[in-house]
Amino acid sequence: MGDRTDLIGTRLEAFRDELFDFLRIPSVSARSEHRDDTNRAGQWVVDQMARAGLEAELVGTEGHPIALGEWRGAGDDAPTLLIYGHYDVQPVEPLHLWTSPPFEPEVRDGRIYARGASDDKGQLFLHLKALEVLLETRGELPVNVVVLAEGEEEVGSPNLLPFVKAHRERLACDAVLISDSQMFAPGRPSLLFSLRGLSYLEIRIRSAASDLHSGSYGGAVPNPAQVLASIVGSLHDEQGRVAVPGFYDAVVEWDQETRDEIRSLPFDEEAFQAGVGARALGGEKGFSTLERLWIRPTCEVNGLLSGYTGEGAKTVLPAEAMAKVSCRLVPDQDPDEVARLLREHVGRVAPDTVEVEIRELHRGHPWRGRPDGPYFQAARAALRQAFGTDPVLTGEGGSIPIVSDFERVLGAPVILLGFALPGCNMHAPNEWFPAEHVELGIITLLDLYQRLGTGDPEDG
Amino acid sequence: MGDRTDLIGTRLEAFRDELFDFLRIPSVSARSEHRDDTNRAGQWVVDQMARAGLEAELVGTEGHPIALGEWRGAGDDAPTLLIYGHYDVQPVEPLHLWTSPPFEPEVRDGRIYARGASDDKGQLFLHLKALEVLLETRGELPVNVVVLAEGEEEVGSPNLLPFVKAHRERLACDAVLISDSQMFAPGRPSLLFSLRGLSYLEIRIRSAASDLHSGSYGGAVPNPAQVLASIVGSLHDEQGRVAVPGFYDAVVEWDQETRDEIRSLPFDEEAFQAGVGARALGGEKGFSTLERLWIRPTCEVNGLLSGYTGEGAKTVLPAEAMAKVSCRLVPDQDPDEVARLLREHVGRVAPDTVEVEIRELHRGHPWRGRPDGPYFQAARAALRQAFGTDPVLTGEGGSIPIVSDFERVLGAPVILLGFALPGCNMHAPNEWFPAEHVELGIITLLDLYQRLGTGDPEDG
Repeated sequence: MGDRTDLIGTRLEAFRDELFDFLRIPSVSARSEHRDDTNRAGQWVVDQMARAGLEAELVGTEGHPIALGEWRGAGDDAPTLLIYGHYDVQPVEPLHLWTSPPFEPEVRDGRIYARGASDDKGQLFLHLKALEVLLETRGELPVNVVVLAEGEEEVGSPNLLPFVKAHRERLACDAVLISDSQMFAPGRPSLLFSLRGLSYLEIRIRSAASDLHSGSYGGAVPNPAQVLASIVGSLHDEQGRVAVPGFYDAVVEWDQETRDEIRSLPFDEEAFQAGVGARALGGEKGFSTLERLWIRPTCEVNGLLSGYTGEGAKTVLPAEAMAKVSCRLVPDQDPDEVARLLREHVGRVAPDTVEVEIRELHRGHPWRGRPDGPYFQAARAALRQAFGTDPVLTGEGGSIPIVSDFERVLGAPVILLGFALPGCNMHAPNEWFPAEHVELGIITLLDLYQRLGTGDPEDG
Repeated sequence: MGDRTDLIGTRLEAFRDELFDFLRIPSVSARSEHRDDTNRAGQWVVDQMARAGLEAELVGTEGHPIALGEWRGAGDDAPTLLIYGHYDVQPVEPLHLWTSPPFEPEVRDGRIYARGASDDKGQLFLHLKALEVLLETRGELPVNVVVLAEGEEEVGSPNLLPFVKAHRERLACDAVLISDSQMFAPGRPSLLFSLRGLSYLEIRIRSAASDLHSGSYGGAVPNPAQVLASIVGSLHDEQGRVAVPGFYDAVVEWDQETRDEIRSLPFDEEAFQAGVGARALGGEKGFSTLERLWIRPTCEVNGLLSGYTGEGAKTVLPAEAMAKVSCRLVPDQDPDEVARLLREHVGRVAPDTVEVEIRELHRGHPWRGRPDGPYFQAARAALRQAFGTDPVLTGEGGSIPIVSDFERVLGAPVILLGFALPGCNMHAPNEWFPAEHVELGIITLLDLYQRLGTGDPEDG
């Protein structure tokens, strides 16, 4: 496989320049002032794909466009691989915590620092370059390829599922390949076997028409902050389990083999705790930290707001109290069903002296991968070859709702093959991507295509 | 008494202009950016007193100064009346709920709208004007008078008690008169027989060093907002009673006569509820609304803050959660003892996976008045004369900690004679004071001095 390293070795510097051009575009999809920048990043992806030899176009949606590239040269009888990524990035605030400006990529200590370096421009870029190298040197790919890069992943992909449904035939494929996640550890590549789903609600409790004096009215007018606290307090039992009736009904107990495999991973609990600066770890009793993160559902408070929150004392009886509450879901929990259970629970717990409003803000299905099949095996072998060690199977506590949507709509398995590293600050200041993973990532993907070409994914 | 009405009738418009000047000063003592404004309001009071004929000075403290005025013309053998008020006001947030700007006084439907209109600039002003009218028209007062107006009442009067103790002899008096409360109802003047005390704490729960991704860490790192909610939820039982062990130990059960008197008051529950726009009333089981407000202690949440509180969904696992919690106390609860009980309770309830910090922000003793003596009788008769009906005795759910301090340090009874009305939005947006009470208030006070002069408080 040495020739593949040679293929990109001489071009690595040029590749890095191109990646930096991509990272310099402030494609913050959540900010209207960056609308043109975001679209520009989509056009940049289209131009790259066209240069590599794909038929490429920017397809408009109601929001940011989708960059779509196609190479169908393997013929109607050959399998098709759909590559998904996104060219938009998270907001950069708080700016003052960045060591170097988020849109001026910089290499320090072997890391490429920039917003989007890991999530997901840097990883999408690896795929674009792998295709370019293969088409340039071989003139063909062993499979048909469709590249779909969206510009709204960081705002909940509102237009992606409709697009996938509307272009179901054009996007028909045998597997979906996504690089938008992390390896288990430096030098320890991994493939994902699970993603958690999401059901995100906002609960508002209202009592009086406006804030009141807590002396003149306290004790006689219901306090919405206290009602809210008792609702939130009722979401868990003493064992750290979610106490919403029915919450666990659809949870699939994981097989002992997977649990054993998770427990066998070289996970450094102390380093994990130190990394987040927590006084202690904790959660559902009877499960390890990785199990709590990967295969157990949660119900978390993401925000609380009521009354006076400034400095000092203000004797106010709040008129309203708000909690943002989100559940991370595991197979086979359904986000709509969980939202319904939560609504019912809150309805039971809240006294009728207050007004309760519940809004659903966000949802996503959990996903459980099937660690088999030719694409999965090819990815596993390619990672082993590039990193010199067998990849481990890991779960992911976060949510990528489109993964289960792809499987459902397109009927194809999804392979989650990530090259970022733990602590890479996705969604946080000083996001980075390991510089040497630019080369290792492209090598992995070249190797993967090679294996698909031989028909024997384990070959090589 | 008609002459007194005439005395001020022609000057009412000028008085209102002066009051508006006073109300325009944004003397928000809690905000450092208003420090100069607050001091300016103190100087305004000094200037008014000097113009009226009092010896007046602004006395510095470690915080905002005290405006002190003295008139000793009645001689050493005559009794002395101490008038207390405050020239600082509550913060005005949330600003968008004000119909007119808080520091641009405006009359609408017979109400003067402005921050401080009722609490307490508007009521302090009545005393300044009564003294001015009397000294201008009669050249003297029937009693010696000391006026003490502080600028830190809304931040817990940190420097007042030390000042009173240090100037015990200069402030020596036979009665203290305070107008910082409400009448029982429109047309129904009242005198207070009780005030609740206060113990105000801020509870902070901390877990990780910074906010985390709720997917990547949720379920394995303790959530401080959930811990806080369970603490707050543990503060009450199902009967609406405070569930902090020991909380009720020092509560004096009120005599049946007082309870009967409270129940006999023409209190309109429905109007009270409609006035605050509440869906329902509620509180400790076994007590009426007025009892809940006047003679029962409470524990209220004044504020909650944690994590993401903006629009939409952000999947954050908060690093910290904060609650402001204040207890209203009744005789003979001690604020320090209650704070200690709360600390102990939180310590028992909070898990050791998080860091707990509790700060005491504010405290005040409860007060129970003695409805007798010449000053009380004079006040009762003056109210009857001015409003044409006998004042009722009422409790007050709020706290004026200095009241019990005055009684303890100066050994003089305190008369609480308020002219604001229920629903006047003290501490809330759209604070107002009834416009006609400017005149009625001054008339009442002129009549009160007249009665003190005759030596027969019931005369007239």
